[in-house]
This record gives sequence, structure tokens and C-alpha cells, in this order.
Amino acid sequence: MFDETNKKALELHKQLGGKLSVSSKVPILTKEELSLIYTPGVAAVCKEIFDNPSVAKAYTIKKNMVAVITDGSAVLGLGNLGPLPALPVMEGKCALLKEFAGVDAFPICLDTQDVEQIITTIKNISPVFGAILLEDISSPRCFEIEERLKKELDIPVMHDDQHGTAVVVLAGLINCMKLKNISKEEIKIIVNGAGAAGTAITKLLHEYGFKNIVVCDSKGAIAKQRKDLNNHKADLANICSCEVTGDLGTILKGADVFIGVSVKNILTPEMVRGMNKEPIIFALANPEPEIEPKVAKEAGAFIVATGRSDYENQLNNLLSFPGIFRGLLDSGVKKITNQMLIKAAENLAGYVNELSPSNILPNPLDRGVVKVVSASIE
Amino acid sequence: MFDETNKKALELHKQLGGKLSVSSKVPILTKEELSLIYTPGVAAVCKEIFDNPSVAKAYTIKKNMVAVITDGSAVLGLGNLGPLPALPVMEGKCALLKEFAGVDAFPICLDTQDVEQIITTIKNISPVFGAILLEDISSPRCFEIEERLKKELDIPVMHDDQHGTAVVVLAGLINCMKLKNISKEEIKIIVNGAGAAGTAITKLLHEYGFKNIVVCDSKGAIAKQRKDLNNHKADLANICSCEVTGDLGTILKGADVFIGVSVKNILTPEMVRGMNKEPIIFALANPEPEIEPKVAKEAGAFIVATGRSDYENQLNNLLSFPGIFRGLLDSGVKKITNQMLIKAAENLAGYVNELSPSNILPNPLDRGVVKVVSASIE
Repeated sequence: MFDETNKKALELHKQLGGKLSVSSKVPILTKEELSLIYTPGVAAVCKEIFDNPSVAKAYTIKKNMVAVITDGSAVLGLGNLGPLPALPVMEGKCALLKEFAGVDAFPICLDTQDVEQIITTIKNISPVFGAILLEDISSPRCFEIEERLKKELDIPVMHDDQHGTAVVVLAGLINCMKLKNISKEEIKIIVNGAGAAGTAITKLLHEYGFKNIVVCDSKGAIAKQRKDLNNHKADLANICSCEVTGDLGTILKGADVFIGVSVKNILTPEMVRGMNKEPIIFALANPEPEIEPKVAKEAGAFIVATGRSDYENQLNNLLSFPGIFRGLLDSGVKKITNQMLIKAAENLAGYVNELSPSNILPNPLDRGVVKVVSASIE
Repeated sequence: MFDETNKKALELHKQLGGKLSVSSKVPILTKEELSLIYTPGVAAVCKEIFDNPSVAKAYTIKKNMVAVITDGSAVLGLGNLGPLPALPVMEGKCALLKEFAGVDAFPICLDTQDVEQIITTIKNISPVFGAILLEDISSPRCFEIEERLKKELDIPVMHDDQHGTAVVVLAGLINCMKLKNISKEEIKIIVNGAGAAGTAITKLLHEYGFKNIVVCDSKGAIAKQRKDLNNHKADLANICSCEVTGDLGTILKGADVFIGVSVKNILTPEMVRGMNKEPIIFALANPEPEIEPKVAKEAGAFIVATGRSDYENQLNNLLSFPGIFRGLLDSGVKKITNQMLIKAAENLAGYVNELSPSNILPNPLDRGVVKVVSASIE
């Protein structure tokens, strides 16, 4: 199936010559129209904004324009491809923002992977935009870039691989707890992967009130006693405060939830069988999950979710980022908080009709999702 | 009239909330559509571009996308307003590129006026674009920025205030010579203003073969003996090789053509009367020309052109930049040459129907102009 999809995708992209179009909202057919949108009339608009910069949002595209920015260092699951090969993904993200949330968005692929240059460049081009969506920037560079930009810019900035993913995972987990009738105080969660997504998921789950979270990287559980932790992993160790050691199979013993943001096929049926009864498996590695849903089910999993559209329970950022950016632009909120992200997850979870182990989240194509998510940003 | 236009322009901009819209070329309603424009299908396109960067143009928006970039340092005739107040002008330029030439264009307003930072930022964001249009950057900074970017980028770069203007002026002058039946060897030209436009006009006219050009700045004629010339003005002195001194009135004595890219009302009827018989006056200061056309005519001018749409003979960049960028994207040309600009001017001049002293250039709203201008870029 993938080969057929790839072939069709290549054909479609070639036929389109890029997925985005920029157009004028007004026709320009008469001298009068020209004099209003261009000289001399436009000068009055420039002067008005110069005299009072806050009106720029009313008079310009800044009102509804998001920059979707990458340095191409972590493109999908493909790795460091660089800026130009990342462009089709960024275009896709922009297309989705418009189609699902009415947000105008423009892709920026940076020809630098130097953290300081990325920050300076984004600040330099920021005037035109109402918000910044960072995408496919590798960890741990992504953390500093996002933090610095949040501090140094007066428009909201969000790294979607982190927080967009975290919102969807939390939403899914909220509904899983309802189905299992278990509380956030008692449930035991293992997050496998300490990159952008794993870190943000862990922090948001902790903020939500989960008490028992262990994060693993390729060397095992992240715990205070480890000497090889960089700053952001040391932060995670403080959240986790776990005493578990050993390989993934050992760590998973007695856990209720596996959240994989790691690599394909890392989760074996034996590991699933070693978890608590009827565990919850979020196998989110893309495009091939940590375990095939069928295999996980046979090993006793109660609920399995993946990032894929061809399996049940698709955990896809498409459920979160269009609504979050719609909400940011509409509300004028300048900093996204964890409270907003948690509210977005709760609203998303609450939007599911006929909740069941095979239906823990809304369909990503459901156009009503944006409304409930955007309402959480205020 | 201006007040009414200003009021209408403000109302229209507020009603629109920005003049540009970014949209998806395809609807995204089904899982299959989603899988083609986004994951998993898009990964095949990314890999294809990674393996062979030259196909990016076929598969992405780079094929037809121009960045319209300013630092807000010389916005129209309004001065250094900064990036955000410049945005309505840049949006207008993008709207015109799409409406007249089918070129997708996106405005970038830089929050820096440091030459090195401008150059670095533009290079960093260049991967997404097929060409760069620089706009409203003050002189002499604009010369270094354009030259460096032309050298350091592999996509075409053009500062429109310079070359877009120069093409239109040359086109107008070619038709004026036909009407006056005078040759480029004998005609005597005074360019008043040695900023971006004045410099580029002078260089292109010289390249075209005019032998007798004098450029004036606010201190008089630019000539080798002056000690106060910066590098770019020293270049102009080499082209002009004039021995004229004195004020504008003195310099204009015996001239056939006045090209003003300076300030309003600087040209008096006395000065016009001091020129050769039936002179040509291009009074291009915007929005108020160096002399009112009626006044110039009464003082003996044979042909008067301005930048204004409400007078006859409008010399407007709209006649040149959409076609030039259409041509750049279609031809794949990487550097714009003077030969291409001269050919564009010749084609533009040749496109005029019913040439007369009150009709030396096509109507800027004539949609056929783009075709003849774009044909010159190859």
C-alpha cells in the first residue's frame, strides 16, 4: 500500500507544482482598485500603522498569518534532510491549517542549523506573522529555540512536535482512563523516547497530575542517579523520580500504559504480557509503530493507538495544532500555557462520540474538532 | 481627492484584514487526500528532493514563489517607517504579482536594518523561494545588499526601486525619442536624484548607449572633481564624465530631458524654459511630482510623465516587475543582466498602440504587458 501511496503522492505534487497558492483577496481591474490597494491609498495605511502599531493586526495579514518554520533537522521520521526536502511537509502543514482552521500559513525552511542563527532569523522575519509554529527541529536544540523565542518575541510560539503531540496523547489517555475506570493517581505510565515529543508528553502528563511516569531513552530509564543526562533529561529525571533500572522489558513490568515515541518494533509481545492486565499501548513511531496493533492485542492489550490513518485510534497532531493556532490568533493570547494545553486535551477527549476501546479520539478529518480545541486557548 | 482615497483605502484594508490569502491547491476531505498531501505519502516527496535537489522546483512552491522583502527603511516616499508599517505596501506588491503575472509572492518585513543581518536572514530563508524582490530599502545600503545577494544566492535577486523603475524610464525615453525624432547619441539628459532609482536609471541609460547624462544630488552635479562622493556616486561620476557645475537651473540649460526621482516642486517653469526647445519632463517624485504637468506644459514641455495614475503618461513599476518575475521563474535565469532589462524596456516601448506625446507607455492595467516583458528574460 505504501508504494502505491508514494507513487500517487509524487504524481500529485508534480501535477500541483507545490501545494499552496498565495492570492489577492481583491481583484485589481480598475485604476480605483489599484489606487486603494497600492499607491497612493496604501500610504495612508502605512502611516496609520506607523502612528499606532497595534492597528497592524486589523489592517494587514498579521491578523491571520502563521509561519510554519523548520530547519529540516528532523523531518518526519526521516532524519536530518535539510531545508529543501522538508518543504513538502511544511506546505502540507500550511494547507491543513487553512483547510481545517481557516488560518493563513506560510512555510519557512531555514538554510541554517545553528541555534543562534535560527533564533535571530526567526526574530528578524517575525513582524509579518501573528504566531510561529516550529516543526521538525531536532532535539535537544528544539527546546532552547522554543524557549528563547517564547521569551524574546511578543507573538506566540509553539513547537508542534512537542506540544501538539502532548495534547493529543493526553486527550487519548483521559479517555482510556474512563474506559478502564482507573484514576490518574494510580495509573503507571512508561514513556519510551526522550526526544521532543517524549519530553513534552511527560511534562504535560506530570502537569495534569499523573503521579507515576517513567521516561526511557535508548540507555534505559531516566533517573537522577544517571551521570550521562543533559539538561533537559535532568529536568525529566526530577519529574519522574523513579528508582527503576534495567531494560525496557524490566521497566515495563507492572505498568498500565506504554507511550512509544521511539522506533519501530521495539515493543515485543513478551513485554506487553509483562505489563499490568489489559494495558494501554500508544505506539506512535511513524510510519511503523513500536508494535503492530494486532500483535499487541493478541498479547493482551486493551487499547492500542498509533499515528497511522489505516489503523483504529489514530493519534495525530492534526487533532490539535489547527485548533490551537485558530485559538491563538482569535484570542490574542501571547504565551501558550500548560493550562491551555490541558484544557485543549480535555475538550478533545470530551468531543468523542460513542467512546470505546477502538474509538478513543475524534476522527482527524472531523471539522468540528477545531472549534472545541480553539475554545481552550484564552 | 487624496483624502477620499485615503479614507477608502483604510476602510478596505480593515474590511479585508490583510490583502493576501494563502490556500491549499487541493481540498483535504478524505483519508486518501490526507495521506497524499501529508503523511505518509509526503515522505516520498521529501526523499525524492533529498536524493535530487533539482526536482524541488517541480514538486514544491519554490517553482512559482517570490519573496517580496523590505526592511522598511524607505517606504514609498514616506521614509524610514520600519517593518510593520511597510507591510501594506509589500502585500500590495504580492497581490499585483499574482493578479498580473500569476506569480505567488509572500511579503517579508525584516525587523533589522543592519546590512549584514539583512543579507544573512535573506540567505537563511531563501530555500522556499524561486526569486527575491527587494523593495523600499534605503540608498546606499540597497546597493550592497543587492550585489551581495546576487553573488551569494543561486536564485535571482532584484531591487525593484532600482531596476523596475529604470526599465520603465528607459521604455518611456525610447518612445519619446521616436516622437521627437532625436538619437540617443545627441540627446542630453539630466537625472535629478542619486538614490536607488536615480543610480539604476543612469546606469541602464548609459548601458543602452546614451552619451550625455548628468546626475545631480542635492549638492549639484555628480562629477569626478567632487570630494564628497561615496563609492556608488563615484561610479556614477565615471559614467557621467561631465564638466557642468552650478545649481539645477544652470545644469538644465540646453538639456533635452529632465528625469526627476527627487522631491516635489523642485523643477520651476523657469528651469523648463532654460532647457532645449520642447523638452521631455519625467517628474517621478511620488505622490507629488517635481513639477505639475500643467505647469511644465505651459513652460514649453513637449512630453510630461509622472508616477501618478490620475495624470497622463504614468511611469509605474507595475509595467515592469510582474513581467520580469514571471520571466525569471519561467526561464530559470539565475542572474538578471542589463541586456535583459534593456530588452524588457524595448519590448515595453514597442507594445504601445497609437504612440503620442500623451501616450508614451502602455496602460499599467493592460494585462498584455506581462507577456512582452517576461519574454525579455531569457
